[in-house]
Amino acid sequence: MAIRLAENNYGKSRVRLLRVTRQPDHHEIKEVTLSIRFEGDFEAAHTAGDNSKILPTDTMKNTVYALAKQYPAEPVEEFALHLAEHFLTYNPQVARVQIDVLEHPWQRIPMNGQPHRSAFLRGSNERRTASVSSARGTVAVRAGIEDLAVLKTTDSAFVGFRRDPYTTLKEASERILSTTIHATWLYLGAEIAYGPAWHNVRKMLLETFAQHESLSLQHTLYAMGEAVLNSFDEISEIHISLPNKHYLLVDLKPFGMDNLHEVFLPTDEPHGLIEATLKKS
Amino acid sequence: MAIRLAENNYGKSRVRLLRVTRQPDHHEIKEVTLSIRFEGDFEAAHTAGDNSKILPTDTMKNTVYALAKQYPAEPVEEFALHLAEHFLTYNPQVARVQIDVLEHPWQRIPMNGQPHRSAFLRGSNERRTASVSSARGTVAVRAGIEDLAVLKTTDSAFVGFRRDPYTTLKEASERILSTTIHATWLYLGAEIAYGPAWHNVRKMLLETFAQHESLSLQHTLYAMGEAVLNSFDEISEIHISLPNKHYLLVDLKPFGMDNLHEVFLPTDEPHGLIEATLKKS
Amino acid sequence: MAIRLAENNYGKSRVRLLRVTRQPDHHEIKEVTLSIRFEGDFEAAHTAGDNSKILPTDTMKNTVYALAKQYPAEPVEEFALHLAEHFLTYNPQVARVQIDVLEHPWQRIPMNGQPHRSAFLRGSNERRTASVSSARGTVAVRAGIEDLAVLKTTDSAFVGFRRDPYTTLKEASERILSTTIHATWLYLGAEIAYGPAWHNVRKMLLETFAQHESLSLQHTLYAMGEAVLNSFDEISEIHISLPNKHYLLVDLKPFGMDNLHEVFLPTDEPHGLIEATLKKS
Amino acid sequence: MAIRLAENNYGKSRVRLLRVTRQPDHHEIKEVTLSIRFEGDFEAAHTAGDNSKILPTDTMKNTVYALAKQYPAEPVEEFALHLAEHFLTYNPQVARVQIDVLEHPWQRIPMNGQPHRSAFLRGSNERRTASVSSARGTVAVRAGIEDLAVLKTTDSAFVGFRRDPYTTLKEASERILSTTIHATWLYLGAEIAYGPAWHNVRKMLLETFAQHESLSLQHTLYAMGEAVLNSFDEISEIHISLPNKHYLLVDLKPFGMDNLHEVFLPTDEPHGLIEATLKKS
Repeated sequence: MAIRLAENNYGKSRVRLLRVTRQPDHHEIKEVTLSIRFEGDFEAAHTAGDNSKILPTDTMKNTVYALAKQYPAEPVEEFALHLAEHFLTYNPQVARVQIDVLEHPWQRIPMNGQPHRSAFLRGSNERRTASVSSARGTVAVRAGIEDLAVLKTTDSAFVGFRRDPYTTLKEASERILSTTIHATWLYLGAEIAYGPAWHNVRKMLLETFAQHESLSLQHTLYAMGEAVLNSFDEISEIHISLPNKHYLLVDLKPFGMDNLHEVFLPTDEPHGLIEATLKKS
Repeated sequence: MAIRLAENNYGKSRVRLLRVTRQPDHHEIKEVTLSIRFEGDFEAAHTAGDNSKILPTDTMKNTVYALAKQYPAEPVEEFALHLAEHFLTYNPQVARVQIDVLEHPWQRIPMNGQPHRSAFLRGSNERRTASVSSARGTVAVRAGIEDLAVLKTTDSAFVGFRRDPYTTLKEASERILSTTIHATWLYLGAEIAYGPAWHNVRKMLLETFAQHESLSLQHTLYAMGEAVLNSFDEISEIHISLPNKHYLLVDLKPFGMDNLHEVFLPTDEPHGLIEATLKKS
Repeated sequence: MAIRLAENNYGKSRVRLLRVTRQPDHHEIKEVTLSIRFEGDFEAAHTAGDNSKILPTDTMKNTVYALAKQYPAEPVEEFALHLAEHFLTYNPQVARVQIDVLEHPWQRIPMNGQPHRSAFLRGSNERRTASVSSARGTVAVRAGIEDLAVLKTTDSAFVGFRRDPYTTLKEASERILSTTIHATWLYLGAEIAYGPAWHNVRKMLLETFAQHESLSLQHTLYAMGEAVLNSFDEISEIHISLPNKHYLLVDLKPFGMDNLHEVFLPTDEPHGLIEATLKKS
Repeated sequence: MAIRLAENNYGKSRVRLLRVTRQPDHHEIKEVTLSIRFEGDFEAAHTAGDNSKILPTDTMKNTVYALAKQYPAEPVEEFALHLAEHFLTYNPQVARVQIDVLEHPWQRIPMNGQPHRSAFLRGSNERRTASVSSARGTVAVRAGIEDLAVLKTTDSAFVGFRRDPYTTLKEASERILSTTIHATWLYLGAEIAYGPAWHNVRKMLLETFAQHESLSLQHTLYAMGEAVLNSFDEISEIHISLPNKHYLLVDLKPFGMDNLHEVFLPTDEPHGLIEATLKKS
């Protein structure tokens, strides 16, 4: 019996960056957290402690700052592409570079109804993501959304489901539907306007969630994915993951009251989890 | 030597509520997390295990839902006042009730440029707070803001500070200033329009932060508090707590580059912390 | 109407330190997170941006490392006392220094049944705390425990409680009792063996929790505090805060089964919260 | 262009359970959090809102409690196998069931030096994991460890690494090595004594970390995996993921002191991340 090193990678996580672009009449900022991973020929480091092919993860971090000086970090997909190309150029021992970016959104403080030129507030918990996986000759660019919490108070039902001896759930023809949207999609080709594309996909996901006559969270997930694939030629697949954040109707009968879908208990656990990938074929 | 029970209280924390108000043409929602605390005559429970004066914390929770059916939970200050009054009326053994409310903001999903009638997205990490402390005959109402993150790219300096043998910090005539605003203020009197007052205080805090020529975070904190006290007759004091979230200028000299206040490292720890209360006298 | 600066303080939070003491045959480590706060004559900084009495919080951080070189950081109470004394000596403008310490426990990795001389594992989530508040001439030293989670499967009841119209809780003569111990106690005098004292108080809190015939969480809290005050002459008061972490008996009747106190649902929210201070008088 | 549903699954996450086994002279407890996922024939639910093949996730949760009544939940691998078998038996539309278990360790409170019969304290942040993936005819059982934090003060170096224009890291022949062990391993065959196996693997991982003369974290990771595969016939592969938690040597020269590897700054971000799978071949 021999032992072999199968998949392996290494990198740097949680590299944080604020990039300020100072225009004469206003400043622009971009705050991101990056992680970088290398796959390649690292066997000797593992088996013999030979580090000669190991670029330090400290250098990966330095490179983020050095390239942030030279490029505007906007849009994040382009910045990730620059990073991946740099690493592949300088490191022949590396077969694949993966760059993951989380963007933390800032928006301008309103000042007498106008956006302030240099002061900002943190917009939301929601984060834009970008992910570049670059091997020599092939590049895959994904964009995404994390932690976009949504809720609708009507147009959601769950009936006609399968029952077994431990099923106690009642059918609901009207219920609160709430989830946190996690989605990533894969771009086709290289000539993408990443900024507008991201905003348009986000708009389509939100509007579909809002308008859909939902028969289940699976049903709504599929509608959201289908709407995106039907609307964007430059997107070939989309993965969506939706926790079902249950809002429980509180039983007010012990207090002599009817609860006409007015008083709910929000819960975090347990929660349902629905995941699917839709592809063009 | 005798042992005595000094300060004591008990209550229920993290009671979560979603309240839906169903109008014919649109729905309104309010999501809050409450905590409730009682002070009063509970010595026998501690020393003898006599629970006859202990209203269960489970009942406190039930009461939130029962009153949420009867009242709209809007504004949160009024709902907290209803709760406090209810508990004092039914529980003569209670001397003081404290209600703390965290509001989790939802905003409407835009649909063809119009706010959707029944679908929402979670606006921000920022939370509105309200706190009612009601004893028999006296009521104090506080409102507040938590976790409102802000940042400015200019108009902030820190020079002329005290030095000792361990001081290595350099003077900065230009720096990033970033903090997370935590503020609470005390209302005078009972005839307050809590909703508009909260929005106006928030606006004043943000605009003062944005416009202030800051010589230190203390200096900006004081300007923010002063602006609120000068502008609102119905507020008698304000407490502000501001962590100094340091954004470190990255040294790019090892890579042969100058960093013209463009590339920063955001950090969470360690952080400065500045706190003060301003009062009218 | 004038505005005045009332209570105010500033300082540095989340200053992290690992101190290694290298003995010939083994190493000792101590990992702590500290926060430092100053009260004093800081009015001009707030009102006029005059920083001449403001020692930078960056210097506070530096001082932790400089003193950690000179002192072993063991026990943490002594290290906090050194820090407080240093700051008061060098800063006449400071009236009071508060040092708070969280210790993150490491224990030795067992190696062939023996503790390893230089390798460690993180013992537990539980943290030892120390807090020194030093003004010129008076020093208060508190020690404490945070996040010590405990649970007992019997010897806990809750009956005979007060009822009102919204009370639905059933009496329980047998229940799971679970809480997370947060306690701090105040030492009398200066000649304290802080290390052994802390371990003995911890042992007494745990044994009292385990053995007590509990009629309520208030009842157990009081017994725990009373045991400590009765056993330690050098402790004058103790504050205890206990969340009531409810474990709900799952109703198995819909599945044709009796639940003989075997199957429970652990919950985090909502939870009860019981707090009290016991003093010698 | 058609759109098709590719991979999809659904399930219930964060199902929490405490199981008490009441022996005459002592009680045993087991606290776990489970997640359950189904893969199978769910296309109609997505595309047409037809729920007739969707067992509610609420039923998945109920099943955990119903089976916890019938089985002791010890070891967790066996309990996960019972759950998977139950779901496959009652649900022909399901092709694969995945059960993931996190165990939260409790240990007995010592009482006069003896373990208490019914009172417990939460041992550690570390968690035991188990994962069962069961399709019709094939079952894979994995066990693992999460969040086992370790640190060594010597026998760790990092020299001879690759350099590029942005490399500034200095070689270190002596450094702190700290990580949080995340490992999962795959069992071969069905006749495994899961309880003893888990404890023996954990012991081997810890002892190898402690004793290894580390030339890099990759080097130590490989040694840990190799030791496990060489020692356990019933394990065919192991995946290990190790964040490199940097402890930075503080520069005390500005204060006129030498830092002889005594004073360190612990950091969480950025951190290195090393991952690999070792297999028998």
